[in-house]
Amino acid sequence: MNKIEHIGIAVSDLGLSEAVFDKLLNRKAYKSEEVESEKVKTTFYRLGESKIELLSVTHPDSVIAKYIDKRGSGMHHIAIAVDDIHQEITRLKKEQFVFIDEQPKRGADNKLIVFLHPKSTGGVLVELCQGLNDN
Amino acid sequence: MNKIEHIGIAVSDLGLSEAVFDKLLNRKAYKSEEVESEKVKTTFYRLGESKIELLSVTHPDSVIAKYIDKRGSGMHHIAIAVDDIHQEITRLKKEQFVFIDEQPKRGADNKLIVFLHPKSTGGVLVELCQGLNDN
Repeated sequence: MNKIEHIGIAVSDLGLSEAVFDKLLNRKAYKSEEVESEKVKTTFYRLGESKIELLSVTHPDSVIAKYIDKRGSGMHHIAIAVDDIHQEITRLKKEQFVFIDEQPKRGADNKLIVFLHPKSTGGVLVELCQGLNDN
Repeated sequence: MNKIEHIGIAVSDLGLSEAVFDKLLNRKAYKSEEVESEKVKTTFYRLGESKIELLSVTHPDSVIAKYIDKRGSGMHHIAIAVDDIHQEITRLKKEQFVFIDEQPKRGADNKLIVFLHPKSTGGVLVELCQGLNDN
């Protein structure tokens, strides 16, 4: 558990939100990327050692679409950078944490990622991520 | 806009959430503090250059109580560290951002803070904060 890697923000209109965050953070995004497996398009801003990730839907059955339908645009998850994702999964399972994914999968921004279930973290969707270029 | 200063997480039971975050982050909180003006008790964990702030209610008419009643426990706000809070307020007002507070006020963790209204940030409650010992 090294740092906040990024904060994921679910947005209903990516172009509109990019315009807002350009002004808010007083900088431009450094990349946009479509993640086909998750049916989302993402835009990333650097902020210190962390990033802000805007997440928009590319297909109505994306989990992000369901989130926005239910709760509206807003903070969706917090991603924490780890050195060894498999080791952290083992440690946290021993502590009775529940994972959404059985195995880490490839996410945006060249990362290996896994999500903990919010029911075991007091309502917060927590992602663990390990950079694929770290080792 | 230097870094994510902290992520604020609204929790219904501070003791229970501390036990969860001790295990999740694999570390102990470095301080707890009551903020009488906001009617909350806060607990802080360090995570890289940022912090995780757990926010619990000390009085039923706290804004955090209203938030938890409506949405349940979960991510409440993102706080961004700035060098000069008054300069950022001026810059953002020119960009049509709306603030909840007219003037910065003293928050937890020895900070001068101000909140932007979520309606101008796409549903995200954003806090700006300037350390009172920075200058």
